[in-house]
Amino acid sequence: MAQIIYGIHPVKEALTSSHIQFQKILISTQRSSPPLQSILDLAGKKHIPITFTTKKILEQMVKDNLHQNIIGIIKETPYVNIEEVLSHWKKEGTKASLLILDGIQDPQNFGSLIRTALGCGVHGMIIPKDRAVGITPVVIKTSAGAAIHMPIARVVNIASTLDALKNEGIWVYGASGEAKELIYDLDFNIDLAIVIGAEGKGIRPLVKKKCDRLFSIPMKGPLSSFNASVSGGMILYEVMRQRSLHNNPPYPPSV
Amino acid sequence: MAQIIYGIHPVKEALTSSHIQFQKILISTQRSSPPLQSILDLAGKKHIPITFTTKKILEQMVKDNLHQNIIGIIKETPYVNIEEVLSHWKKEGTKASLLILDGIQDPQNFGSLIRTALGCGVHGMIIPKDRAVGITPVVIKTSAGAAIHMPIARVVNIASTLDALKNEGIWVYGASGEAKELIYDLDFNIDLAIVIGAEGKGIRPLVKKKCDRLFSIPMKGPLSSFNASVSGGMILYEVMRQRSLHNNPPYPPSV
Repeated sequence: MAQIIYGIHPVKEALTSSHIQFQKILISTQRSSPPLQSILDLAGKKHIPITFTTKKILEQMVKDNLHQNIIGIIKETPYVNIEEVLSHWKKEGTKASLLILDGIQDPQNFGSLIRTALGCGVHGMIIPKDRAVGITPVVIKTSAGAAIHMPIARVVNIASTLDALKNEGIWVYGASGEAKELIYDLDFNIDLAIVIGAEGKGIRPLVKKKCDRLFSIPMKGPLSSFNASVSGGMILYEVMRQRSLHNNPPYPPSV
Repeated sequence: MAQIIYGIHPVKEALTSSHIQFQKILISTQRSSPPLQSILDLAGKKHIPITFTTKKILEQMVKDNLHQNIIGIIKETPYVNIEEVLSHWKKEGTKASLLILDGIQDPQNFGSLIRTALGCGVHGMIIPKDRAVGITPVVIKTSAGAAIHMPIARVVNIASTLDALKNEGIWVYGASGEAKELIYDLDFNIDLAIVIGAEGKGIRPLVKKKCDRLFSIPMKGPLSSFNASVSGGMILYEVMRQRSLHNNPPYPPSV
């Protein structure tokens, strides 16, 4: 199925990615600007057809969302398989950092989590085929184009996928509001897959059972949870912080 | 100006707050449910009039957003002044934790930041009167009702407000993508106000000059920044983590 990407930044990001193929690019302005010109140059080099059209057509294609006069039509949904996620990790040669979303429904949350994951050095993401949002145009836009760079696998069965990861020596840690163990107390400087559950519902029981450890983020006040994309950001920040600390210890190692 | 709050959870949150006054509550269902019943009970205790109306009217009031058959009309915009923010901190008796948003434009980001701030124990927030989103119904909804509990001051001049905070012995630390000092390297276990800038633009130069220190969050990959509400979450998490560590040191203090 053809997908669309809109907005100057996301389209430019997609053009610089090697695994995205464009069918064509639609533009609804004749006014040149440096960002637009750089897109035209990139598209020219890749022999991607460019069509000038009306703002109205672009508005119909992206509904209420800002298209910034540009829409790219790409050839297929850019999912990868688990093997590609793992090979991406192995090629980097660092401790594994994978993010598994067990049923995120909101495209804004999904897009934001992809953007955060890319910025925190996550090697790949895994989502379920059912009862979860996939990579839609809104997701690509909200991710600020990060969805184009991040290897994302979509699997039928998250629980059995966790078994496959464990066979690779990867530890599976799940975020759960009810867990007694706090995020502060865990060592994330290991080959790691983090599992985050659906908004409001959390990780499904069968998936939770597969987690090696569960942890919670402490929270003050009357609310029961952080927003899913914010708690994801906190967790991935903590993983990045601990690994940076390990690479650059604040004190000389004790003798 | 009257404001509206919609959705079961936000309306319920607002009803439990002492500084929100309702004009009335509109409901577009006759079907009872435990959450709705608890709202009716709370409203009854507070002598707030309840009007049954049509779904269509509710839809016109909140446009495309989910109202969950309930809208509360509140009497005035719940801003406080700086003195109230400070007295809220002093009453708690803990190290100050304030959040200053220098020009956040997006209501979703603002709402999410309020929700995160409340969950991380922030004592109060400060926003500018101009060129920034205020507390709108969308903000209240996105904050999951946290906007009702969080003391938020709106000031004309952020720079001079920072001077006033410094006079109270509060340190002002600003988040800036270009800062050389990393978030890991700062001690947040002090009386502290964190400044976060507008999406894309960051903190304004005059405000930046007032900051005692600037820090950045390390970021990998091709993107230039995290989403504003996510980086806010990472920062407030780090503050909370360091303070928790201070209260519960992982190792016995050295002799």
